[in-house]
Parts: sequence; C-alpha cells; structure tokens
Amino acid sequence: MAKRTAVTMTQVAARAGVSQATVSLVLNGVDDGRVSEETRGRVKDAVEELGYRTNAFAKSLRSGRSGMIGFISDEVASAPFAGELLKGAQQFAWETGNVLLSVDAYDDAELEAAAVDMMLSYRVSGVIYASMYHRHVDVPKGLEALPSVVVNAQDRTGRFSSVFPDEEGGGYAATRCLLDAGHRRIAMINIQPEDSELPAGIGRLAGYRRALEEGGLALDPALVAYGTGIVADGLELTARLMSLPLPPTAIFCGNDRTAWGAYRALEALGLRPGRDIAVVGFDNHDMLAPNLDPALTTIALPYEQMARQALQILLDGPAPAARRVAVECTLVERDSVMNAKVQ
Amino acid sequence: MAKRTAVTMTQVAARAGVSQATVSLVLNGVDDGRVSEETRGRVKDAVEELGYRTNAFAKSLRSGRSGMIGFISDEVASAPFAGELLKGAQQFAWETGNVLLSVDAYDDAELEAAAVDMMLSYRVSGVIYASMYHRHVDVPKGLEALPSVVVNAQDRTGRFSSVFPDEEGGGYAATRCLLDAGHRRIAMINIQPEDSELPAGIGRLAGYRRALEEGGLALDPALVAYGTGIVADGLELTARLMSLPLPPTAIFCGNDRTAWGAYRALEALGLRPGRDIAVVGFDNHDMLAPNLDPALTTIALPYEQMARQALQILLDGPAPAARRVAVECTLVERDSVMNAKVQ
Repeated sequence: MAKRTAVTMTQVAARAGVSQATVSLVLNGVDDGRVSEETRGRVKDAVEELGYRTNAFAKSLRSGRSGMIGFISDEVASAPFAGELLKGAQQFAWETGNVLLSVDAYDDAELEAAAVDMMLSYRVSGVIYASMYHRHVDVPKGLEALPSVVVNAQDRTGRFSSVFPDEEGGGYAATRCLLDAGHRRIAMINIQPEDSELPAGIGRLAGYRRALEEGGLALDPALVAYGTGIVADGLELTARLMSLPLPPTAIFCGNDRTAWGAYRALEALGLRPGRDIAVVGFDNHDMLAPNLDPALTTIALPYEQMARQALQILLDGPAPAARRVAVECTLVERDSVMNAKVQ
Repeated sequence: MAKRTAVTMTQVAARAGVSQATVSLVLNGVDDGRVSEETRGRVKDAVEELGYRTNAFAKSLRSGRSGMIGFISDEVASAPFAGELLKGAQQFAWETGNVLLSVDAYDDAELEAAAVDMMLSYRVSGVIYASMYHRHVDVPKGLEALPSVVVNAQDRTGRFSSVFPDEEGGGYAATRCLLDAGHRRIAMINIQPEDSELPAGIGRLAGYRRALEEGGLALDPALVAYGTGIVADGLELTARLMSLPLPPTAIFCGNDRTAWGAYRALEALGLRPGRDIAVVGFDNHDMLAPNLDPALTTIALPYEQMARQALQILLDGPAPAARRVAVECTLVERDSVMNAKVQ
C-alpha cells in the first residue's frame, strides 16, 4: 500500500533521476512522446515507491472538474430514514470515482444560499438537492449555474430533473396485497389532512383508490381517515374505524408509525393484527416494521435507488429536457396480512 | 444577494478600471499600501456588483489550507441514531467557517484507505474518524499524516484524541434515578454478552454497580441478564427476571430496544411499566422512547456534543498530548418510573 506522507514532485523527480518537468509531463499524460518508455517507467516506479499522489486540487484547477458532487439536504442527515438517501449517493459517488461534498442546510434559505455559493466556489461538477420528505420544492436560485437534480422531491418549476418515490404505485401495491388476500372492506388511514398538498398522502390515496376500482370496489369515504402520520393518530383513528357499524377487515396505514398506533388500538379491542384484521404500513422503517408484533407488511421507500438515479442523471450530463423519474415503491411481506374470512 | 454565474477576475478588473494584478493584490490582502483606499474601494464595489467569488480551490492551493474537514465514518450516515454525529459536525463546521467532506467507509479497510488518500489529496485540515457504535478502533494508518480525532470510539493506541460517551456515568444516572424512586431490587439487562469487550455494555454495567454500591446495595448476579440489544432479548430476559422467586421492582435496560421488549413481556404478565414496575432505557431513540406506552424514561447519548467536541479539538490545533474526552450521558425523564411501593 502507498505511504501517505506528503511527498513532493521534487522528491519523485530525484528518485527517478529526471527533472520535475518530466515528472509533470508524465503524470499529466501530456509528454507527447518526448519522454521515453524507459523514463516513463522510472517515474511511475518512483511514484509507486514514494506513495506520491497528484494534488487533486491542482488537477481540479487545471481541468475545471473536481470530481466532487455536492449534496445539499434539508436535515436529511438526521431524518429518521432518509439517511439512506445520503448513503446511496455516497456509495454510488465512490463507485463512479467521485466524492460527495455534503451539506445539511436545515431548510434555512440563508444557509442554502451559502451552501450553493460554497459548492460553486469548490467547483463541484453537479449538485443533488435532497429533501427529507417528498414535497414540491423551490430550488435555490444559485443552483441554476450548476447541473442539479432534485431528489425525494419535485422541482416546482420543472426546470430541474426530479427523482421521487412513486407514491401512487406504492399505495396501489399496498391495497392490491389486501385485495389479493380476499379483503373487500379495506380502510385507509392517510398521513396528512384531506386538504394537504403533499405528494405522499395524495399519491398513496390515489393508489388505494385505483386498486379498489380495479377490484370493482368504489372508495367508501367512511373508510378513509385522515391523520398526521404519528402513532397517536393511528391509535385514535383505528379505534374510530373499528367502531363503524360495518368495520373494515383490513387497514392500509399511510406510514409505519400510524400502523404502530393501529396495532395498539386493535390490541385494546382484543384483536390481533395478521389474525383478526390485516394491516399494511408504508416506509419499511427498519426500527419499527420488523420489530412490531407481528412483523409489519409494508411498502419500502426507494431511498438508495433514488439517490443512484439522481447521481446517474448528473453523470449522464446535459439532456434536452429535465426528467421526471418516479421510482418504484415495493411491497415487503411480513406477518400482518392474513386471508379474509368468508363472510 | 450576489449573482452566482462564473465571473472572472478580468471582469472585476475591467469594471473597477484597474489591472488584474491590482484586483489580486486587494483580494488577497497583500497590496502592502501600494493600492490607494479609493482604488481598493472600487475593486470591492466591483466584486460586490458582479458577485465575484475568489476561487476556493486556488486559495486553498496557495495557502495549503482548504477549510475542509474530513469526516470518515463506518456507516454512521445510515445508523439508527448516530446521524446526529454527522449533523453535529456539519453544523459546527459551518459555524466555524469550514465545510465537511464526508465519506462513509462501511467499515471496509480498503474503502477506508481510499478515503484517507482522498482526504489527503484534497488537503483537508483535519479528519474526524467516527464510529457508528462506541468501540475501540484501530485508526487507519494514513491518518497519522493529518490532525485526526476519533469520535464515538476510542483509539486503541492512545495516539489520537478520542471523544466518546461516558457510558459509566450514563449507567450510574439510570440506576440512581431508580434508587431515588425508592427501588431496591433493580435488575439490569445488558446489551452484550458477559465476556464482550465493548465499552457500552461494560461502562453501563459499571455505572449500575457503582450506583448500587453508593446506595448500600451489593450487585446481585441473579438480577443481571445479558442480551444483545434487540427487542426479542428484552422480551425473553424480562420474562426470566420476572419469574425469579423475588422479582425486581425496577429494570434498567441497556438500550431502548431492549426496553421495548421488556414492555411487551410485562404486558403479557398483566403488568404496566411505570405503574407496576419501573423501566429505564438507554439511547433516547427518537422513534421509540417518546412513542412507547408509557413514554420511556431513558438516557440520552450525546452525539451532537461529541461531534462538536471533536471538531473543537481539531480547530484548537496541535496539543502536547492526545486527549480523552468522556461526554456526559443525561437522564431524560418520562413516564416509565414510579416510586417503589413500601414493601
């Protein structure tokens, strides 16, 4: 393995017995045949032996390309699960010879502008602008000067490519799984108020509706409840749904936290999820979904895939038009869905 | 706000009506009185009007200091709660005019070596080497060439400063809180096997022992159980502890996941945490601790504070000796501890 002390080009030149200019020509691949194979070999041996590394800053300055990709997020680093976004981007950046310069701008416009300035001054080759939760965003103005892709969000103007979860497909998959198990009275507890414009709740509800309609069922408004995605809502709204004259036999919860609350409400009624009533969540939260009792069948959000897609769009370079990529949300089957009893 | 298109020094010079050399002298603060106040004012106005920014790369190359701090982690970005480490470091880096170049090396020696090489070539001014969980680490050899601080871990050789949680103090605080509520038969469910050398379990157990001894109690080996920190262990080991001839009236769980399992075991026995038996956790996991029913009294791990301490050590510059900083773990009181019944 190469040594990692600061070796200079002069030392390489001395070791190889050539001038510093020769070392520079060889390392930058611009000797145009002026340096013999034998000399080139000596330089490369010296580089190897001394563990010399070309100064990436200098290289970047010369080429105008730094190999750095910016990653600006609004608290993604501390979000419950969206750390997967950062992980996916980091991993794929490495695989493609890039490194991530990541900044958490805490959804603060001033910090965001400073982050953009910093990214520009460091000459990143592109920026991934990541949101902690799926929403429509106004991309900071400064990012227009750089190739930029929005991830886990949708650019309101449509000028930037956006990579986001296919919420509608996820809601469809969750409901389809319940229909396939024979359920016909399927409730949904959404994670946002009815008048909210966030794409997650709107999309998941639309997918629920589409699956029901495909199954020959009309959406029954009495079976749709609106919460805010917290445990307490799952608890309260499940209790309310179960007190209907004709209660549901299955509940699609808009996220795993809501499902946790639903479990509690059902237990309080002496009902066991996956035996007496089917429950499906959304998020595949790694602390919750596998640890609930019974383990929760849920929909996985494609954080890592979204990050890779976004980076791929940057690496692909200029495109004729901004792209909109909805990434599939997949069903993760565990133990909270049983077949419907014949009624 | 400054424009963010790529403005050159030549454009600034033209706007100010001076030579490029003059602009350079002014911006680098090296004109030594050769430039008049009036000219300096014109240059600064032009910089402002055009939104020119000095090329950070060029500056770094000249000064040998980049303002970048490296952050190498072993999956910290995707760890359940240690994202707080990255968040703390990022925030404090910003506050001190630095930016974080963060790399997740996935606990892979080869990736780690590449990360170190990359950090060296980008001339970061120092590196924070962060662990996902508290352990003794072998710092990658290459980091010897750079000021480096280990965080959430302890350097095995003692050559690097280390910032880590005061596990013993946390175990003491958890047990002290139960003693203060009048409990005398306090069990502990540790998060690792008895022969494990990880500092978290060793420290938390030592703190438990010290608090008991201060309270005039000897540690009763029958009241100490050893799990692996997962929900299933909390469930099984709590059931075992509660079947003792003289069961505990309080349980200190070595982490919040274990406490979740303990809650389940207690519920299965018809006992309610915080009413019939006291439970304290460790971690203050934001998805679990406040959402358990009742909300869990637990010990918070000082991720953000550790990150800030580590960065501060880097910013303080060379010190006569490596430092070892144990950061306090604090009690977060919620609803799972009640006073002991008079027995």
